[in-house]
Amino acid sequence: MNPYFKFEILHECAQSGARLGRLTTPHGVIETPCYMPVGTQATVKAMSPRELREIRTQILLSNTYHLYLRPGHELVKEAGGLHKFMGWDGPILTDSGGFQVFSLGDLRKITEEGVEFRSHLDGSKHLFTPERVMEIEAALGADIIMAFDECVPYPADRAYTERSMHRTHRWAKRCQKSQLRQDQALFGIVQGGTFADLRAKSARAIADMDFIGNAIGGLSVGEPKIVMYEMLEVVNDILPKNKPRYLMGVGSPDCLFEGVLRGVDMFDCVLQTRIARNGQALTSRGPLTIRNATFERDFTPVDPDCDCYACKNFTRAYIRHLIKAEEILAARLLTIHNLRFSLRLMEQMREAIKNDRLLDFKKEFYEKYGLAQ
Amino acid sequence: MNPYFKFEILHECAQSGARLGRLTTPHGVIETPCYMPVGTQATVKAMSPRELREIRTQILLSNTYHLYLRPGHELVKEAGGLHKFMGWDGPILTDSGGFQVFSLGDLRKITEEGVEFRSHLDGSKHLFTPERVMEIEAALGADIIMAFDECVPYPADRAYTERSMHRTHRWAKRCQKSQLRQDQALFGIVQGGTFADLRAKSARAIADMDFIGNAIGGLSVGEPKIVMYEMLEVVNDILPKNKPRYLMGVGSPDCLFEGVLRGVDMFDCVLQTRIARNGQALTSRGPLTIRNATFERDFTPVDPDCDCYACKNFTRAYIRHLIKAEEILAARLLTIHNLRFSLRLMEQMREAIKNDRLLDFKKEFYEKYGLAQ
Repeated sequence: MNPYFKFEILHECAQSGARLGRLTTPHGVIETPCYMPVGTQATVKAMSPRELREIRTQILLSNTYHLYLRPGHELVKEAGGLHKFMGWDGPILTDSGGFQVFSLGDLRKITEEGVEFRSHLDGSKHLFTPERVMEIEAALGADIIMAFDECVPYPADRAYTERSMHRTHRWAKRCQKSQLRQDQALFGIVQGGTFADLRAKSARAIADMDFIGNAIGGLSVGEPKIVMYEMLEVVNDILPKNKPRYLMGVGSPDCLFEGVLRGVDMFDCVLQTRIARNGQALTSRGPLTIRNATFERDFTPVDPDCDCYACKNFTRAYIRHLIKAEEILAARLLTIHNLRFSLRLMEQMREAIKNDRLLDFKKEFYEKYGLAQ
Repeated sequence: MNPYFKFEILHECAQSGARLGRLTTPHGVIETPCYMPVGTQATVKAMSPRELREIRTQILLSNTYHLYLRPGHELVKEAGGLHKFMGWDGPILTDSGGFQVFSLGDLRKITEEGVEFRSHLDGSKHLFTPERVMEIEAALGADIIMAFDECVPYPADRAYTERSMHRTHRWAKRCQKSQLRQDQALFGIVQGGTFADLRAKSARAIADMDFIGNAIGGLSVGEPKIVMYEMLEVVNDILPKNKPRYLMGVGSPDCLFEGVLRGVDMFDCVLQTRIARNGQALTSRGPLTIRNATFERDFTPVDPDCDCYACKNFTRAYIRHLIKAEEILAARLLTIHNLRFSLRLMEQMREAIKNDRLLDFKKEFYEKYGLAQ
């Protein structure tokens, strides 16, 4: 028993089987299912920590690969850790850098030892091993840290996917052995590509290692959504019910619903912040491209159903003007809105689970949003 | 007597002669001397209206030329005016576009009628006349509106400066005649380049027109500061004491002091927000380029003497990291700080005037800041 962490299932929706949970960490309690905004470089793009609080962010994700390269994990440690460095005193999760280094393509070389790669910033050479990643994540000091894994691209052949999966399992064990701090919850990551039997094998292997939480990686990398949902079912049938499950890199409204319905507790996604900087908003009636000329004289809020600062104080016409004029406030207001939209969606799902009506809520949401059931 | 506006002199500093005043406008009271942050395109770059309130902004400036071209003054009017459009319910001042259209160089042609110019955005042809500018400023709906003037470049020959000055006076009268709203205070603008006798002539002409307030334009355009101070003395000796005096486009700490000491009540400047986006901070110990490597591991606030959100919550090392990583929060934090620094400096000057010690305060400030007395 690790005294720093606790995961409780508070309720299971009688209508859908989805679960309501509570994860306790050294920096606070997280009600699940939850969505985690992404702060790649020790800042959620365009947001301040107090704005993140205001929209009721429970936990942030930050990226180990980026922070290791800039400003460097040692500097973050000197600053007193990531929480203090970035001024966020709530829970933080760091990924392992696995996804980023594998995305470097020709710039990286995989061996049993780890991954040698060149920085995308200055071309300098680096080596990530499970042990090294544990050291970096310990220095950053997040509440939840991820094991070093390989995220297999889509499509990938079965033989490669299987070989890589076994290596990810061996790396997971090495991460467990070299973990440095007890006040950090290490999560294992299930891989196995889009092969149901490999996913099942990986889920069993990771479950057997008895991590504090388990993640599902390598999904939403280009495969059809239906395949992702199938893999989720296979994996979550096997992963222990009494531990949090984190679906990595997934966060569109429909994926959030489908994940929660299949027993996922945690999600992260850059979609919300990225499309905001591109002039797009998620709303209760579907996505809107506020940049479009349609909104030139639209003096209504981005989303009349929203309780965020942007929707309470500004119009589509004003935000469109800010976008056209390339003003920073445009990205700020749409980021606040898109994040609040997703966080509120999770609040509503938690409420619906509690009231045994998640399927009803899904139907209502999809109808208004314009999604097929 | 215009019932919407009132200007009171509350105190004169026994040590320096500088004045403490209070200007009442339809959207609130402004304690003077004051600094006005600039929101060129209906937004102070990187700031939200509630952040502007938090740092105790009293009045904002916005640019008629920019808003006329984008989103268009008619759209702003439809939105309910500039206050409502941008979500700022405090006082606003709009300039006349004069400075901007004259800065277009080859893209503009001056006649007695007005200025024909091409948009810097799409090359389209437009005509600004005093009457047209009054119409545009009425549509925008600011509390204080500026007369349409010609800002003569530096250096300029005497003959041209004099001809232009007389035209500016004729235009000022046309502005007065065509002003559309009584709930807007029209300010006249003194010109005359760097010629003391022309400045005196212009100050008398503008004073005679009995505007609610008077502005001093065409300074800080490249002339030595000593020349600017001399012109200020000539002009402010003539401009009526019982009306607010606004020195346009000036706002570095030393110019704020020298202006206040010569009887100026209002200032605006883009320096604060512009250098913030370039990684530079104004501090009580002089300007700092936070972007520099010196600050890589400096875990102290940008300015230990500052009470702003950035200085209370973040370090130089963190802000430097944000700058290097090209994160929006860098511009946000430094803008909050630089504006708060300048607004607080004016608060301190007002306090010093009240206590008859503005010269003492100036000495203390200059010593710490590293300015020669």
